[in-house]
Amino acid sequence: MNWTAEIEAAWSRIAPHVRRTPVLMGCDLGLAQPSDLKFEQMQHTGSFKPRGAFNTLLSSHVPRAGVVAASGGNHGAAVAFAAGRLGHRATIFVPEIAGPTKINLIRETGADLHVVPGAYANALEAAQAFEAQSGAMQIHAYDSIGTVAGQGSVAAEWDAQGLEADTVIIAVGGGGLVAGAMGWWAGRRKIIAVEPVTSCALHAALEAGAPVDVEVAGIAANALGAKRIGQICFDLARETGAQSVLVPDEAIAAAQSLLWRQLRQLVEPAGATALSAVMSGAYVPEPGERVAVLVCGANPAPDPLS
Amino acid sequence: MNWTAEIEAAWSRIAPHVRRTPVLMGCDLGLAQPSDLKFEQMQHTGSFKPRGAFNTLLSSHVPRAGVVAASGGNHGAAVAFAAGRLGHRATIFVPEIAGPTKINLIRETGADLHVVPGAYANALEAAQAFEAQSGAMQIHAYDSIGTVAGQGSVAAEWDAQGLEADTVIIAVGGGGLVAGAMGWWAGRRKIIAVEPVTSCALHAALEAGAPVDVEVAGIAANALGAKRIGQICFDLARETGAQSVLVPDEAIAAAQSLLWRQLRQLVEPAGATALSAVMSGAYVPEPGERVAVLVCGANPAPDPLS
Repeated sequence: MNWTAEIEAAWSRIAPHVRRTPVLMGCDLGLAQPSDLKFEQMQHTGSFKPRGAFNTLLSSHVPRAGVVAASGGNHGAAVAFAAGRLGHRATIFVPEIAGPTKINLIRETGADLHVVPGAYANALEAAQAFEAQSGAMQIHAYDSIGTVAGQGSVAAEWDAQGLEADTVIIAVGGGGLVAGAMGWWAGRRKIIAVEPVTSCALHAALEAGAPVDVEVAGIAANALGAKRIGQICFDLARETGAQSVLVPDEAIAAAQSLLWRQLRQLVEPAGATALSAVMSGAYVPEPGERVAVLVCGANPAPDPLS
Repeated sequence: MNWTAEIEAAWSRIAPHVRRTPVLMGCDLGLAQPSDLKFEQMQHTGSFKPRGAFNTLLSSHVPRAGVVAASGGNHGAAVAFAAGRLGHRATIFVPEIAGPTKINLIRETGADLHVVPGAYANALEAAQAFEAQSGAMQIHAYDSIGTVAGQGSVAAEWDAQGLEADTVIIAVGGGGLVAGAMGWWAGRRKIIAVEPVTSCALHAALEAGAPVDVEVAGIAANALGAKRIGQICFDLARETGAQSVLVPDEAIAAAQSLLWRQLRQLVEPAGATALSAVMSGAYVPEPGERVAVLVCGANPAPDPLS
């Protein structure tokens, strides 16, 4: 797979539809060293997910039955948003644990929304049944080339904005975002893949030598709680040697608090997970190593304006 | 006054101490046309105010008694922060209407904090009495050259970040920020000075032909509720022909909501006041006119993490 070409194509395909999200260089957050930050939570629908959704829709023949997605919330909101912008029908299946903030976000797009008892895996099963019955096109949340290439545009864009960091720190759920980053940087920058201790599908797969099922729980579960890491992410992590680190939920909560207190950025737990690795010492940069942190989602519960 | 030179000097003086806050070009917020945005609420202490505070401190001989400031909250937090960073004592007087978010923000800096019954004018009186008795240096919140030149660095920085807008929209309280912008752009870009109907010191002064006292109230009062516009701002507004517009409190609240829903930026009412002028139609751009909006403060009450 030529990921550079895939991601460049995705980036130019989606450029008219997504925001070029802001960056802040050498930001003093009161930590041991400054960090470069990118605020991808300012993307449409509050996460990076529209990049993959637009890329898939714009590079596919979409059937009249439209698209279907299963999602912990953010991917569903992104698919519903992108489908709406491009004039397609969208049917979204979310598990109850998506929570009211994300469920309302999807509802407001006008998509056909189904809230499914249980966890992400149950929503995925329902979405697959709907796909088989309706002929709608499934957009996978993380383990498809179109999704990964779209998410990889974050990395391409960050380079174009003058990123100089040696190391980029990224949160991992099913691995679509970090796979895009690994595909783009491919060893040119060190990548730290951060998972909660409570939902660590990539970490478990790297230990087992293959993707395996894990239990998922914790404060970031509705965004990062994939039961099994995507095969694309797993293969790229082995090829590029990305480093996997784990953080406890308390460290994620502390990073959420720091982002508000220092930068007035109110994010969801998944959006603060990458930063928590630096704050908590789960990842300790070498002296002089320049670190960049991707802030990737801000659909917290409860919604502060609800 | 050579404002270009004053602002350039201020900008290079404070550069090591303040953040170069992010910008977003041509942002689609679902309004009639896209806007350029600058997120100055990501500045230290959550508002633009540290620019003026650092500039004043770095261009003055600070007495051993330190500095004193009266403030609706944001200026006090900025003076306390800047003084702390530079190793000076700070004594801050705030009125009760500053509210718990801003009062706690100042308290956390370790400054000597006095909460005064009444409004901003009462805090200013107490600060002046303290100045006379202690020999501490007063840092005015808006009507001094050092403060205005520091705030003007926002405009210089935005130009350096590639601002292309014809028109820049800025909220006005005592007028330090908009005066800095008027001093910098001096007719090169059109400036729209936005005040709440409930606190409109600049508007009243322009109508009366001189600064006059006004009543202050409304949801943005602790940030924009100056009883009388600064003389520097008034003179610059007449010289440069800045356009004054008024917005009702409901329009400000609607802009706060839009900034959260569209961009996941949770700001205080004053921080959304500029945007509210475009949203509400208080200012209607010409066809093809490119508009930039300064988001300037994010210390909302209640604090979302409290």
